[in-house]
Amino acid sequence: MRVDIITVLPGLLEGPFSHSILKRAEEKGLAEVRLHDLRKYGIGKQKSVDDYAFGGGAGMVMMVEPIIRCISDLKDQRDYDEVIYMSPDGERFTQSMANGLSLKQNLIILCGHYKGVDERVREHLITREISIGDYVLSGGELAAAVVTDAVIRLLPGVLNDETSALTDSYQDGLLAPPVYTRPADYAGWKVPEVLLSGHAAKIESWRFEQSVRRTRERRPDLPAGTPTLEKGDNIEDKKDK
Amino acid sequence: MRVDIITVLPGLLEGPFSHSILKRAEEKGLAEVRLHDLRKYGIGKQKSVDDYAFGGGAGMVMMVEPIIRCISDLKDQRDYDEVIYMSPDGERFTQSMANGLSLKQNLIILCGHYKGVDERVREHLITREISIGDYVLSGGELAAAVVTDAVIRLLPGVLNDETSALTDSYQDGLLAPPVYTRPADYAGWKVPEVLLSGHAAKIESWRFEQSVRRTRERRPDLPAGTPTLEKGDNIEDKKDK
Repeated sequence: MRVDIITVLPGLLEGPFSHSILKRAEEKGLAEVRLHDLRKYGIGKQKSVDDYAFGGGAGMVMMVEPIIRCISDLKDQRDYDEVIYMSPDGERFTQSMANGLSLKQNLIILCGHYKGVDERVREHLITREISIGDYVLSGGELAAAVVTDAVIRLLPGVLNDETSALTDSYQDGLLAPPVYTRPADYAGWKVPEVLLSGHAAKIESWRFEQSVRRTRERRPDLPAGTPTLEKGDNIEDKKDK
Repeated sequence: MRVDIITVLPGLLEGPFSHSILKRAEEKGLAEVRLHDLRKYGIGKQKSVDDYAFGGGAGMVMMVEPIIRCISDLKDQRDYDEVIYMSPDGERFTQSMANGLSLKQNLIILCGHYKGVDERVREHLITREISIGDYVLSGGELAAAVVTDAVIRLLPGVLNDETSALTDSYQDGLLAPPVYTRPADYAGWKVPEVLLSGHAAKIESWRFEQSVRRTRERRPDLPAGTPTLEKGDNIEDKKDK
């Protein structure tokens, strides 16, 4: 998978993409993330990429032309599945959208900055608008990093242990159960005994119960937050569904 | 405002915090963000911070002790309003939570990594768990950066033009209207005429109409997505409410 990120602040993203799983994915040849400095496509001697908003008001607007030039340059080199624009009014990013995007080959992600991009870019060039949540950031860069991280970690082989991603929160509509590590007793704070029992089936049942309880308590809005699971039901039966 | 971020990957966050508005906020003395490498508080010669999960399963778990040591060290130096843990099963981050956090003085943000932190940390040390959305990241670092960015940009004086944040999407429960900049005609793609009219009141009305329309189309779930605004109503009247 290849992700081309267009930004006015490539320096902001160098850290996130040279660490952790993204670095590992690049080293293994599973993913390629390229940062493109929009200023290279800027207009005039100043290499301008933004200008005042028509109609007045606070904040600068990113111009059509530098963006078109940059995207055209990329499209000349390969076909893209999506040209994504990160925007707080876009479609809400979810784990299932991450799953979908992880199946694509080539993505462009345009990071808005300042007051956003000229609407004509959104009308004519963007195929998908994504929001990572109901809040405003100083630019689309961190949002692009979030989407890229969430997607690339799903590519087979990126995580050391593939089952690690499968047991994440949200993959099965349930929040993850609590986790514990040594010591078993830290100044009187103890690990639940079942986890020390060595009894695999009991541990599995306990984790599933905890997941269901946590989902009901914290996220009754998730489908699994109101499961048909009743007290006394055989949890193993339900789990296989 | 001061934000202390505890992470196993401080390098990942250096870029985001040395660019854009976060850098500006630091330079102006309005905010201070400090990254703390959890490994400095690690155990033994290896400076370990994680260990296998009790009960088995994929993924490592962050240990209690290094986290306690690091947080105690910080608490010895000042009082903290919140000790936040970034987690996909936390309370959903929103613009109104960002507004609330921007009024605090000192925050600690703990970034989970690997399979997460030992549950006893969450039970005994964390005062607030925040999720930036329904998806899983390879660590809490990008999520911590998102929260920090969203909060710090709200501090008075951080943005160049304070009205810029006030007209953002979500601040009034409405999505932002489309924005345009020069040229007025790009290869036949034209800017709406009203924006070129110079008529401030008409422009204001158009923007409000567009905001309402966009909110209804894209986010009928927001309170303003189903306003009492009816066709023929005086928009100016409604807007003042």
